[in-house]
Amino acid sequence: MVVVMSPDATDEDVAHVVEKVEGVGGEAFVSKGVVRTIIGLVGDIESFHHLNLRTLKGVADVHRISDPYKLVSRQHHPDRSTVWVGPAGHQVPIGPDSFTFIAGPCAVETAEQTLEAARMSKSAGATILRGGAFKPRTSPYAFQGLGVAGLEILADVRRATGLPIVTEVVDARDVPVVAEYADMLQIGTRNMANFGLLQAAGDSGKPVLLKRGMTATIEEWLMAAEYICQRGNLDVVLCERGIRTFEPATRNTLDISAVPVVQATSHLPIIVDPSHAAGRKDLVVPLSRAAIAVGADGVIVDVHPDPETALCDGPQALLGKDLRDLAQACRKLPPVVGRVDAAELVRTS
Amino acid sequence: MVVVMSPDATDEDVAHVVEKVEGVGGEAFVSKGVVRTIIGLVGDIESFHHLNLRTLKGVADVHRISDPYKLVSRQHHPDRSTVWVGPAGHQVPIGPDSFTFIAGPCAVETAEQTLEAARMSKSAGATILRGGAFKPRTSPYAFQGLGVAGLEILADVRRATGLPIVTEVVDARDVPVVAEYADMLQIGTRNMANFGLLQAAGDSGKPVLLKRGMTATIEEWLMAAEYICQRGNLDVVLCERGIRTFEPATRNTLDISAVPVVQATSHLPIIVDPSHAAGRKDLVVPLSRAAIAVGADGVIVDVHPDPETALCDGPQALLGKDLRDLAQACRKLPPVVGRVDAAELVRTS
Amino acid sequence: MVVVMSPDATDEDVAHVVEKVEGVGGEAFVSKGVVRTIIGLVGDIESFHHLNLRTLKGVADVHRISDPYKLVSRQHHPDRSTVWVGPAGHQVPIGPDSFTFIAGPCAVETAEQTLEAARMSKSAGATILRGGAFKPRTSPYAFQGLGVAGLEILADVRRATGLPIVTEVVDARDVPVVAEYADMLQIGTRNMANFGLLQAAGDSGKPVLLKRGMTATIEEWLMAAEYICQRGNLDVVLCERGIRTFEPATRNTLDISAVPVVQATSHLPIIVDPSHAAGRKDLVVPLSRAAIAVGADGVIVDVHPDPETALCDGPQALLGKDLRDLAQACRKLPPVVGRVDAAELVRTS
Amino acid sequence: MVVVMSPDATDEDVAHVVEKVEGVGGEAFVSKGVVRTIIGLVGDIESFHHLNLRTLKGVADVHRISDPYKLVSRQHHPDRSTVWVGPAGHQVPIGPDSFTFIAGPCAVETAEQTLEAARMSKSAGATILRGGAFKPRTSPYAFQGLGVAGLEILADVRRATGLPIVTEVVDARDVPVVAEYADMLQIGTRNMANFGLLQAAGDSGKPVLLKRGMTATIEEWLMAAEYICQRGNLDVVLCERGIRTFEPATRNTLDISAVPVVQATSHLPIIVDPSHAAGRKDLVVPLSRAAIAVGADGVIVDVHPDPETALCDGPQALLGKDLRDLAQACRKLPPVVGRVDAAELVRTS
Repeated sequence: MVVVMSPDATDEDVAHVVEKVEGVGGEAFVSKGVVRTIIGLVGDIESFHHLNLRTLKGVADVHRISDPYKLVSRQHHPDRSTVWVGPAGHQVPIGPDSFTFIAGPCAVETAEQTLEAARMSKSAGATILRGGAFKPRTSPYAFQGLGVAGLEILADVRRATGLPIVTEVVDARDVPVVAEYADMLQIGTRNMANFGLLQAAGDSGKPVLLKRGMTATIEEWLMAAEYICQRGNLDVVLCERGIRTFEPATRNTLDISAVPVVQATSHLPIIVDPSHAAGRKDLVVPLSRAAIAVGADGVIVDVHPDPETALCDGPQALLGKDLRDLAQACRKLPPVVGRVDAAELVRTS
Repeated sequence: MVVVMSPDATDEDVAHVVEKVEGVGGEAFVSKGVVRTIIGLVGDIESFHHLNLRTLKGVADVHRISDPYKLVSRQHHPDRSTVWVGPAGHQVPIGPDSFTFIAGPCAVETAEQTLEAARMSKSAGATILRGGAFKPRTSPYAFQGLGVAGLEILADVRRATGLPIVTEVVDARDVPVVAEYADMLQIGTRNMANFGLLQAAGDSGKPVLLKRGMTATIEEWLMAAEYICQRGNLDVVLCERGIRTFEPATRNTLDISAVPVVQATSHLPIIVDPSHAAGRKDLVVPLSRAAIAVGADGVIVDVHPDPETALCDGPQALLGKDLRDLAQACRKLPPVVGRVDAAELVRTS
Repeated sequence: MVVVMSPDATDEDVAHVVEKVEGVGGEAFVSKGVVRTIIGLVGDIESFHHLNLRTLKGVADVHRISDPYKLVSRQHHPDRSTVWVGPAGHQVPIGPDSFTFIAGPCAVETAEQTLEAARMSKSAGATILRGGAFKPRTSPYAFQGLGVAGLEILADVRRATGLPIVTEVVDARDVPVVAEYADMLQIGTRNMANFGLLQAAGDSGKPVLLKRGMTATIEEWLMAAEYICQRGNLDVVLCERGIRTFEPATRNTLDISAVPVVQATSHLPIIVDPSHAAGRKDLVVPLSRAAIAVGADGVIVDVHPDPETALCDGPQALLGKDLRDLAQACRKLPPVVGRVDAAELVRTS
Repeated sequence: MVVVMSPDATDEDVAHVVEKVEGVGGEAFVSKGVVRTIIGLVGDIESFHHLNLRTLKGVADVHRISDPYKLVSRQHHPDRSTVWVGPAGHQVPIGPDSFTFIAGPCAVETAEQTLEAARMSKSAGATILRGGAFKPRTSPYAFQGLGVAGLEILADVRRATGLPIVTEVVDARDVPVVAEYADMLQIGTRNMANFGLLQAAGDSGKPVLLKRGMTATIEEWLMAAEYICQRGNLDVVLCERGIRTFEPATRNTLDISAVPVVQATSHLPIIVDPSHAAGRKDLVVPLSRAAIAVGADGVIVDVHPDPETALCDGPQALLGKDLRDLAQACRKLPPVVGRVDAAELVRTS
């Protein structure tokens, strides 16, 4: 931590800061410049936070130097992690060696639609099925999901297709029931900072797919992951899904740089959701190609047998030629960037 | 609703849209331009949503024309509302005729600190006390609040000072206990889209202070208020607290325009939180003056007897001269813009 | 300046940085932490920039501590400045003691329209006339202004009304002719980083009104002002006019906090343009009130005798009751915040 | 164009709009809804703009439906264009069939440094050399480029290496001299809305590389290209270089989606600059891979023989292993997405 004094700070002001820091067992190194003095702090960061150094007389600014997260950082865990999704005997990896293709309908509407979407996804090469039973919607008048009935449909479809299931949970009170059915819990963009939900997911014993808040910095996102990990659950996969910017041509702006930035900082796997980022079907395939090429550990896309009748996000769901193009990209591009299809690495024991 | 066809849409494409719209009982008015055709839809908007018009062949875009919210809109409720906060016999108004000054510590830390902050606030002219017992924190390593013990301190301080209390609730499971102690529930910026929490607050029977999500559009914010109102609770006060932008000089950018924009659209009262918007003590007084002058129905500010030792947001808490300056602004400016101090309108029966 | 080493930096890496810094005459103070080492640099900042410290092995980050601007800073010029606008014998102040109301049409269209708008503005209390002869337009198909013919109309209207004139210049090649006619040159939001234009304006001998780039940070804006001041022209007035954010309800988001932030950092006067910020007539009066109350040194608004026929920005131009409301706010609010109407401080000798 | 009336608009208000539209030869189709009336306009858009419909009584909003640009649109020019860069006898294509790798130093500093960077770039597979002689800098105290001496160095290096040259021009007054030396003029992000410069570049007879303004929407960027095309110069290549967002981990956020969005809308080629987007050397290679995979027509990257001594943007310049990795990506990925190396399509006659 570095404390920057204002140009008119007095020697007493500097001494007061040093005294405070030493009072909690830290060391303070003073660098006296022509215009300003800066003080480098060494010791336990947490104890410094409680000093409220920014409120002290003569202090202009305080810069944090170290990362505020610990469990998700590569600092003490340099090797990138693999998270395994699925029941014992059929676990699909998401991690640095493989490329994992996740697909399915935005919302579970009926057993038929879900099964059909799952079959389309599997044919295209998907190894994990996505599908929402609990939907967080901006409007209280929009379709809110089938709830537990939807979870049962997902379980049936898993039996029929063998695909492990990732599904969203939107309320801490629903975590136990969702964890009973799902292979992986998804925490959506609107709930990234719902700390009670993060902690409940951390306690669930299931892997968690944590979407980036549409207006969260990468650091805030990693702090949200830290909430989950703190409960003893390190099986967290991050998902970049676009951030809010001034550009109206796409629903959100896919922050493709977040993939290598996260991989440089955290050991957690990271995948990309091009469907929700763009909100436009015609961009899903090119953005998926970009995600693979930049080095993402997987993609997650919306697939629907009949987008015209979809109850949620129809305009971005793939089918037909688009889905075949995506399937082809998911076959051809990963090997060029040194990745193996997750299907080949499934853990069966 | 307006459907814009793409330049290469065929007559069949247009006919298909018209047919779909008429199929759910709507009317479609076709305007055939030189380059494009546009179709105006008249009828029940909700039924049109389910048509997924954006997925139909030949459709380039769909523009919604009406507001998506109903209960919070001025359309059927043209007069602006007043929300009354406090126990029977001492209810403080927040609404179009008055100016309400809310102050208190960011977090309840001890009985002494809270009482002292409440007395400072009351002396400065505040008529409602704020104070957090449950704190949502970006870092799992930060102080998370005293919980129920904090609520008890707040209740004691209410007895001692007579100030009604607004306090944050961060988890739907805590709503009953918080509603038992508090006069008004606050939903914070990170939880604006936590729909389960919104609904629980709507069911609580207490007025709700709904902060704007730091990256929420005004429309999304009003939709969040609609979630609360839908449960039969129209006692919602909105609070502008800054939005996330590229400007680093302030923690967030106070969107002062949101006040007149909201007042033109919704009947709900709206207040401003300059402390959390700026994150800088030196801006709280000028921004409070701006809030009063723009026509806000109140302000809410952080006050702390000893910012150096504050466990939360010390750098923005006021005391001493700053607080006196604020008190003066809250006395002198409201009358110039046609407002009466809420203290003069307290409902005692 | 502070150099933060990465956790895996070696002692040689640290020594290399120290050596480089000392090589250009600086001093380096090393603070060795448990996880990281930080190095505080003291000496001539410019010489450190050329070292490209960020490219050195083991360096994780470099934080600048001092402000990058000099001439516009309050550091060596603590008193806030007043800029005088107008010909000898009738100079209107813009500065810390007064409140200056500037009004006029967005674009000069005809002699009649300009004179009428000027008379409306003067009646409402304006002391400086704005009006565009050269217009920067996003579309090459939009009205681009009357050019020199517009400048002549402005000069005629100045003779008729006595109001000094501020008008925009969009190309460095036009600076001499605009400076011949105008009392103050305006540099618009799209040209804030047009460095050739800034320098030409600095050489013109006229005061300059520098609008904030709609996506410029306050620091970048002050750096743009520094370009003008560097040519020996310190008569620069800053104008906050809204920044680009995700909120669509207003054309731009008025960053009202920029006023006190700039005043804390720079001695230059700062005014607010609520018309271009909001792009909506109904917000101009409340935002002007907010600007006065926050402590702005003036406001600049669009006025047009017939907004329906305006060739530029008609939807935001005031007339009738709105203009009377604004006139009233400009009379009543400044005294409450300790300001005198600029009209009372005009320098006649 | 669609005019949306407010809920309280009267029949007279609607009739007034219709009358205005018909007065300029347009047709107005009225759709009367339960709550609101909407009016579809058919005819010459430009004539409607002058009506200032938004200022008319009862009008709530006006939606533009057609694209505001013409010459750059695919509407009347459905095939994507190829722009040829270089002297007769050695012209390098940038367009839909090829992939063009452009590299070189951010700034021309010395003849040796430029020649060395050009040789490194050529060895890595680059077919066009970039290098700045005129530099727009945020700080007036930073290195501003060598000017004409730099252009002479570039011409020498072209002779030595055979690489055509793209270099920035920052002032309309410099266009003739830059066009004399360069094969392609670059207009930088800060000048995207410098309309005088755009027009001068349009008149220069040379191809133009138009970078996106760091805060420009895609529509504004295409309008800027329209300014150039309007002067009869259709040889414009667009360059996505990152937009300003709230995310601090990268200097700007690379908007990778802009590539397919532009390609769907405009026939102009589009390339990507990952160096300036990220501002971090470690992201240049992954972002270049993403750019190729998403379907960009080329990339442009910073290369420097000695980043430690670079006078401009050293932290993002590649050399050594990074450059070899980039060279490999530029060889292996384009064929996978159906592209041929531009080197194989050079036009020699």
